[in-house]
Amino acid sequence: MCQLLGMNGNTPTDIVFSFTGFATRAGRTGEHVDGWGIAFFEGAGVRHFVDHEPALLSPVADLIRHYPIKSRNVIAHIRKATVGRVALENCHPFVRELWGRYWVFAHNGDLVNYLPALDGPYRPVGDTDSERAFCWMLQCLRARFACHPGVEALADALGELSAGIAAHGTFNFMLSDGEALYVHCSTRLHYLVRQHPFATASLSDDEVSVDFAQVTTPDDRIAVIVTEPLTTNEVWRRFEPGELMVFVDGAPVLARLVSG
Amino acid sequence: MCQLLGMNGNTPTDIVFSFTGFATRAGRTGEHVDGWGIAFFEGAGVRHFVDHEPALLSPVADLIRHYPIKSRNVIAHIRKATVGRVALENCHPFVRELWGRYWVFAHNGDLVNYLPALDGPYRPVGDTDSERAFCWMLQCLRARFACHPGVEALADALGELSAGIAAHGTFNFMLSDGEALYVHCSTRLHYLVRQHPFATASLSDDEVSVDFAQVTTPDDRIAVIVTEPLTTNEVWRRFEPGELMVFVDGAPVLARLVSG
Repeated sequence: MCQLLGMNGNTPTDIVFSFTGFATRAGRTGEHVDGWGIAFFEGAGVRHFVDHEPALLSPVADLIRHYPIKSRNVIAHIRKATVGRVALENCHPFVRELWGRYWVFAHNGDLVNYLPALDGPYRPVGDTDSERAFCWMLQCLRARFACHPGVEALADALGELSAGIAAHGTFNFMLSDGEALYVHCSTRLHYLVRQHPFATASLSDDEVSVDFAQVTTPDDRIAVIVTEPLTTNEVWRRFEPGELMVFVDGAPVLARLVSG
Repeated sequence: MCQLLGMNGNTPTDIVFSFTGFATRAGRTGEHVDGWGIAFFEGAGVRHFVDHEPALLSPVADLIRHYPIKSRNVIAHIRKATVGRVALENCHPFVRELWGRYWVFAHNGDLVNYLPALDGPYRPVGDTDSERAFCWMLQCLRARFACHPGVEALADALGELSAGIAAHGTFNFMLSDGEALYVHCSTRLHYLVRQHPFATASLSDDEVSVDFAQVTTPDDRIAVIVTEPLTTNEVWRRFEPGELMVFVDGAPVLARLVSG
């Protein structure tokens, strides 16, 4: 299986600390060595890095660990291949454009006998069930809405689509357009919100601590969402199975059970 | 104005040498400091790096100069902003998916009063004339062909589209789907083909030489296409204004005058 990491904040924030712990699971504290990827929104643009080398060894991941790219919405993924070969085109996150915005998507879980009718403009390039699900969701959203319908209407639509897809298996996913981060949990995801007063956090996968009070302002608020908690001394809330949650400006703004 | 660099080869080849000279024009030997980008095909997948910092200073460009990513099709761009703000979403190359393949596009030149009717699935995310032209071309290709029609038919269609767009101004562009590299010249582009017997090449923008005989096999063949020649001791062929050329496996396979 794979692991997911997402960040949504009210101010551009780097993900060096969280990614350092997360990438350690790609070979040292975990077996997710079949590629990795990360996408950072920066304004309307996206920086998209994918690599089929393990994140622990990849020179590109080394750059991400040391170059503090600041973003309000980030999605990262480390892969343990189950469906689809180990190849660059199968590395998450995937990026497509809809309504003049980029959409970034990453998935954890297997979908069984999942062959949606992709007759719209989005076709998978690789051979993962994940990219098929992403293309299907965009096809349906595009057919339903001529432009972005707003976060709540979009969450409603994603809830319906997620329930249909989750009927085929495990569908933990993260999706963002740079404004909101949409997260659906089939089995396992956790999150926390860091805000004033900030404290020191210590990674569970590496000997690294950060005193967030030293690197933030009192107005900053950052939500971190991840498959398995990244730190030992913070309280992570576990998602309910079937829960869809939307994060905007570093806080959950909407949560509902959509699949079961 | 901007500058373009493309590479098409019959074997995965790194672009470290050419990119080193090219990136020097982003601040030292040229004034193209308003962002840069590069995309490498690897199988069906794409590694896409964009940055709004000058390529000479960017840590991401530093990675590209030192990490030999091997690819059969590469497109790079350094930007001197004329139309569109300096922002990540305005950095070339742009990437979209059509027919289950990624397409990478970069443009040099200004298009005047260019407002095509974008009523298909491709909408610009940024505000450059270049991304508008790319979206328009994909919209037209998708409307005309249900799947990839083959290199020659695609070149015919691109020739027609290029002529229409070039009527609005300067339209030097590079486009690739990872198999072929389609290049249109309005004003200024050069190319060469490196093949056996390989020789030593010396950059015009930096004190760097490479003896390609040491890093190639006799079967390798690589075409390099660039706005201004990159080396001092090789013979670069200049494109004709209005010429569309297609490169496959490191050689031009098709050349015709399509606009003028």
